Amino acid sequence: MESFKTIEWKDDRVIMLDQRKLPNQEVYVECRTSEDVARAIKDMVIRGAPAIGIAAAMGIALGAVNSKRRGKEEFLAELKEIATIMSNTRPTAVNLFWAISRMMGVMERNIDRDIDWIKEELVREAKRIYEEDLETCRRIGKVGASLIRDGMSILTHCNAGALATAGYGTALGVIRAAFEEGKKIRVFATETRPFLQGARLTAWELKKDGIPVTLITDNMAGYVMGKGMVDAVIVGADRIASNGDVANKIGTYSLSILARFHRIPFYVAAPVSTIDFNCPSGESIPIEGRDPGEVTHIMGCKIAPEVGVINPAFDVTPCDLITSIITEKGIAQAPFAETLRAFI
Amino acid sequence: MESFKTIEWKDDRVIMLDQRKLPNQEVYVECRTSEDVARAIKDMVIRGAPAIGIAAAMGIALGAVNSKRRGKEEFLAELKEIATIMSNTRPTAVNLFWAISRMMGVMERNIDRDIDWIKEELVREAKRIYEEDLETCRRIGKVGASLIRDGMSILTHCNAGALATAGYGTALGVIRAAFEEGKKIRVFATETRPFLQGARLTAWELKKDGIPVTLITDNMAGYVMGKGMVDAVIVGADRIASNGDVANKIGTYSLSILARFHRIPFYVAAPVSTIDFNCPSGESIPIEGRDPGEVTHIMGCKIAPEVGVINPAFDVTPCDLITSIITEKGIAQAPFAETLRAFI
Repeated sequence: MESFKTIEWKDDRVIMLDQRKLPNQEVYVECRTSEDVARAIKDMVIRGAPAIGIAAAMGIALGAVNSKRRGKEEFLAELKEIATIMSNTRPTAVNLFWAISRMMGVMERNIDRDIDWIKEELVREAKRIYEEDLETCRRIGKVGASLIRDGMSILTHCNAGALATAGYGTALGVIRAAFEEGKKIRVFATETRPFLQGARLTAWELKKDGIPVTLITDNMAGYVMGKGMVDAVIVGADRIASNGDVANKIGTYSLSILARFHRIPFYVAAPVSTIDFNCPSGESIPIEGRDPGEVTHIMGCKIAPEVGVINPAFDVTPCDLITSIITEKGIAQAPFAETLRAFI
Repeated sequence: MESFKTIEWKDDRVIMLDQRKLPNQEVYVECRTSEDVARAIKDMVIRGAPAIGIAAAMGIALGAVNSKRRGKEEFLAELKEIATIMSNTRPTAVNLFWAISRMMGVMERNIDRDIDWIKEELVREAKRIYEEDLETCRRIGKVGASLIRDGMSILTHCNAGALATAGYGTALGVIRAAFEEGKKIRVFATETRPFLQGARLTAWELKKDGIPVTLITDNMAGYVMGKGMVDAVIVGADRIASNGDVANKIGTYSLSILARFHRIPFYVAAPVSTIDFNCPSGESIPIEGRDPGEVTHIMGCKIAPEVGVINPAFDVTPCDLITSIITEKGIAQAPFAETLRAFI
């Protein structure tokens, strides 16, 4: 198990490991209000689809606990406002909306209870979402490890690890589970510009666990595949459409094409909560555009003159470039429109 | 024409624009000895295959001018040592070896002349290599511009521009020539980790010339191609094998696969001096491995924990992923083993 906590509910506070400062500093941020949590999600103190779902749930619980409203209607109205603030933080990861709607469901189901009971139940629900995510990741790991053979070399992109979840991780959960089963594996981590989640987070996590990891720049992926150094690609997901199209960190689409060219299996590991059954295909997934400064500056250093820049945070990998989708409920293969539905 | 000089012979000194400091500082480095030049090549004060060929030639000329040896044999021996030092700077770009052998050819052909005449002739030869490169780039530009249609959007990788040559550039020479012909074009520059030549150099050069450029991280290439935003890819080359395999900046191979997947033409622009007719295929091209610190640190900032790192500076794009090779003598297409030979 990891020696750090990505996110934690403690004494009516939400404590998060500040992922912007890793790997150079291991600093924790204390969120005292739901606004603090929303800002932390937006500024990427915490990131990763399952983790921001947990953060949003805890943020709503925090807002409830802090509420001074005495009347039920005023209390409900305040919580709805908080939910709206949470849902405006980041648009792509569906787990955010899934978690918010679970929290609002608690409210709706218990509308007749008194306010203090509802507050306590919202805290319990946020903690349940956290605990379930941890359990879900362990199951994803166990399910996915069946695809990993002894001696395999696995390429992963961005960070779909303990830092992107309550712990253990999705793509890194599969890697961890295979490693724990005693399989000798080796990981290539792409640095994942612009935010460098691969270099800063994945390399850091895997090193802590003693799993052999080699860091490469994003543009070396083709090189290592061409040299026969990669046996499988495993990535996480921010949203999976009902047809199996996957939105994930920018660069995932390129990797899926490189994997196909080299006949390397391309796996996506994610909880069922990442599947958006209301979303027919990748075209309907909103892609977040982030500050161009993330591209033109690295660690505060300017690396480019003032020119045009685009900064899509995600891209969509079409389902036909995906070998399998690994969930806590099993492994889906094409035709995903049918196989994913079995997980509802 | 560019408002800067990549490299210049001036008053028995070699002046180079320090490309490590761009775009934040426009600083020139003065090399007083051949050792200074060798170090500048190795440390990437100057880079780009044609430019390091010119630098090596000027470095040998500088060594000759500075030589204190009175006897012909001692003088020759010293120049051979200098040539060896030059040839040990960087292994992949063949222009380096081509330029060194041109300079040594001057010596061999004029062995009977007196030392002062040979010194002057070596300086003249280095200046000729410089002037010829400028002329060659302009021809590559004119030849290649025939492939560029009005309104095209072109993706380029690394820097194959004025900064990689005596001026004007190879891949960027084609872009410049098309732009000068009045064609409305738009360029996507990949930032090109780890050394960031695209962000630091290509964006800077194109901006100076008023050519519209959009900077992207390397892992966004598939995204922009998938969105139909790229009509052609043009890159330079560090060495072209006689079968048409191309060694170029790491990431070029990945781009060629992405271009093929999206049915986008993939062009290589380079002088004939970049073709190594002694090299049967890409497998024989030595690939330089550089300091892992270039991957783990950016602008002096540490971005990763201590983990394994590989840092191949180049990769090889197999000839069957290349649409055309653009040279000053014409455009070659498959079968390259035959078509390139026509350029000897």
